[in-house]
Amino acid sequence: MLVLPWRFAGIEQPSTLEPTLMMNGEFETDWTSTTLRVRYAETDQMGIVYYANFFVWFEIGRTDLCRQLGFTYEEMERQDGLYLMVAETRCRYKAPAHYDEEIVVRTRLRSVRKRVLVFAYEVYRALDPMLLAEGETIHVITDRDGRPRALPEKYRELFRVHSKAVSSRQ
Amino acid sequence: MLVLPWRFAGIEQPSTLEPTLMMNGEFETDWTSTTLRVRYAETDQMGIVYYANFFVWFEIGRTDLCRQLGFTYEEMERQDGLYLMVAETRCRYKAPAHYDEEIVVRTRLRSVRKRVLVFAYEVYRALDPMLLAEGETIHVITDRDGRPRALPEKYRELFRVHSKAVSSRQ
Amino acid sequence: MLVLPWRFAGIEQPSTLEPTLMMNGEFETDWTSTTLRVRYAETDQMGIVYYANFFVWFEIGRTDLCRQLGFTYEEMERQDGLYLMVAETRCRYKAPAHYDEEIVVRTRLRSVRKRVLVFAYEVYRALDPMLLAEGETIHVITDRDGRPRALPEKYRELFRVHSKAVSSRQ
Amino acid sequence: MLVLPWRFAGIEQPSTLEPTLMMNGEFETDWTSTTLRVRYAETDQMGIVYYANFFVWFEIGRTDLCRQLGFTYEEMERQDGLYLMVAETRCRYKAPAHYDEEIVVRTRLRSVRKRVLVFAYEVYRALDPMLLAEGETIHVITDRDGRPRALPEKYRELFRVHSKAVSSRQ
Repeated sequence: MLVLPWRFAGIEQPSTLEPTLMMNGEFETDWTSTTLRVRYAETDQMGIVYYANFFVWFEIGRTDLCRQLGFTYEEMERQDGLYLMVAETRCRYKAPAHYDEEIVVRTRLRSVRKRVLVFAYEVYRALDPMLLAEGETIHVITDRDGRPRALPEKYRELFRVHSKAVSSRQ
Repeated sequence: MLVLPWRFAGIEQPSTLEPTLMMNGEFETDWTSTTLRVRYAETDQMGIVYYANFFVWFEIGRTDLCRQLGFTYEEMERQDGLYLMVAETRCRYKAPAHYDEEIVVRTRLRSVRKRVLVFAYEVYRALDPMLLAEGETIHVITDRDGRPRALPEKYRELFRVHSKAVSSRQ
Repeated sequence: MLVLPWRFAGIEQPSTLEPTLMMNGEFETDWTSTTLRVRYAETDQMGIVYYANFFVWFEIGRTDLCRQLGFTYEEMERQDGLYLMVAETRCRYKAPAHYDEEIVVRTRLRSVRKRVLVFAYEVYRALDPMLLAEGETIHVITDRDGRPRALPEKYRELFRVHSKAVSSRQ
Repeated sequence: MLVLPWRFAGIEQPSTLEPTLMMNGEFETDWTSTTLRVRYAETDQMGIVYYANFFVWFEIGRTDLCRQLGFTYEEMERQDGLYLMVAETRCRYKAPAHYDEEIVVRTRLRSVRKRVLVFAYEVYRALDPMLLAEGETIHVITDRDGRPRALPEKYRELFRVHSKAVSSRQ
């Protein structure tokens, strides 16, 4: 299935992603960036990247944001027994991605709350750069059995260190 | 990454999917159903279905809705040169799906407009049945090169035949 | 990447899969059959099913063979703590599979030994039927930690009940 | 499904991959290397990388080998209308790969013939390095419609430039 810009369709796009996902937390981080190259396996018969794979790229962005902030999600699961359970996801597609193109995934924590994290993503074609898609994922922090847990202070502190002033968002 | 019910987290879930995707068209269809069994390949190291795979299941639901309405999406692409380009997707996760479980994907056209189709989905575990996820995808009708096209009358007529009165939605 | 018949290439195909995988066990089972429909997600930009997905179909065939023999692999993992670890796989591609085609995966246990199972597969397009691919996977029976285990008698007995006389193979 | 070393199973492994895939060509290239990091999406419920994904990694190795030899497979398809159709694949699994591990895929052209290319692969965990898997894929060069074509001289020349003396193989 194809991905495509609303603008090509001459259709007014719903204004913004914000309304339903407006969950302001204490702070948010700056963007981190990850580069990847489109795999043949990620394309479909339309000759472009299959739409579900953008969520795989979002996950790569999350993993890399953790690493750039000073910890690994792998350790968070294994050592602390904490999981970022996905509660909601969305993606808005602007333009298709193609095999062998270099892609930049930008990721940031848009909201850090006691038991909920909201990540925001932007996917660019590196060449131009051109915005291909933007999305969000909402996660609840849980233990292995799915019971909600509070974000440990050590992670909160890491997020805080890398946060920007929330007031600068406007 | 895990999927999990908001309710377990004791968090008030954003009320509804409707607001941003409110795009009422001329009519909408009733639900169609598709059954599938969870593949080992679809699980991740949390022991549950990886979150991006729900969008693959949505696509299976779309393909089956077309077939149940009297045409195949495969022919729509090949014979008419028309594509349902994905412009926006979202999914809200309620409970995880596991390997070898039987799954029911319910799909309906929630809005049919001149150049835009909105599909809605519900994913159930067949056993209970228990609602695992619900989502929506917005598609723009285009030609092979991504230029928007009007939905041909033959498809519009098929949708109309299977539509229910919009006024019955409340 | 495409899959294609050797014969179109005018090349003499290596004679048979047998030599390196020749591991005769005590007995073997008859073929079981599973039907599936090609997903859009399974295609690549050549317009055909991506080659790695045939191994996903093999796994579906294995799961179904277990079910048709009277147990589920899911229970084997969860209740008995036994795993069929993949040690070697191969696939020979004869003709491509396309989106929305109905596919039949035939699976059989080609060899049952104390700690090793060899499964054989044939993938057909249901319409003709036309052979699209054939392959084999070799599995070692282990516990959760990867230590080899002997196949429990209850499974051996199930395999035996469904076995055909090995002497009838010729 | 798990991947696992033969040696843990106390089983004598079939001696070598060579016999059925013995297709000596005019020359072969040296190894090229590609690094990747295991994605969460690539794991399954055994907590390790799903076995079919090793073939996705092989494809990444092929793409990178082309680039390191001076052309892109993407251009080969788009500009020359030539495709490397997969005719046969195999993989032997030595040890499992885990989420977030850094992986090195080594790739080389093991045989270059008029219309057939054989690629060989080795997958290592970068840390040790430890060999996780080795495999081969055989490809027939075709046009878009699957008809066999001779490898153009420009590619043959690139392969030759990067080839090592075949006699040095022993």
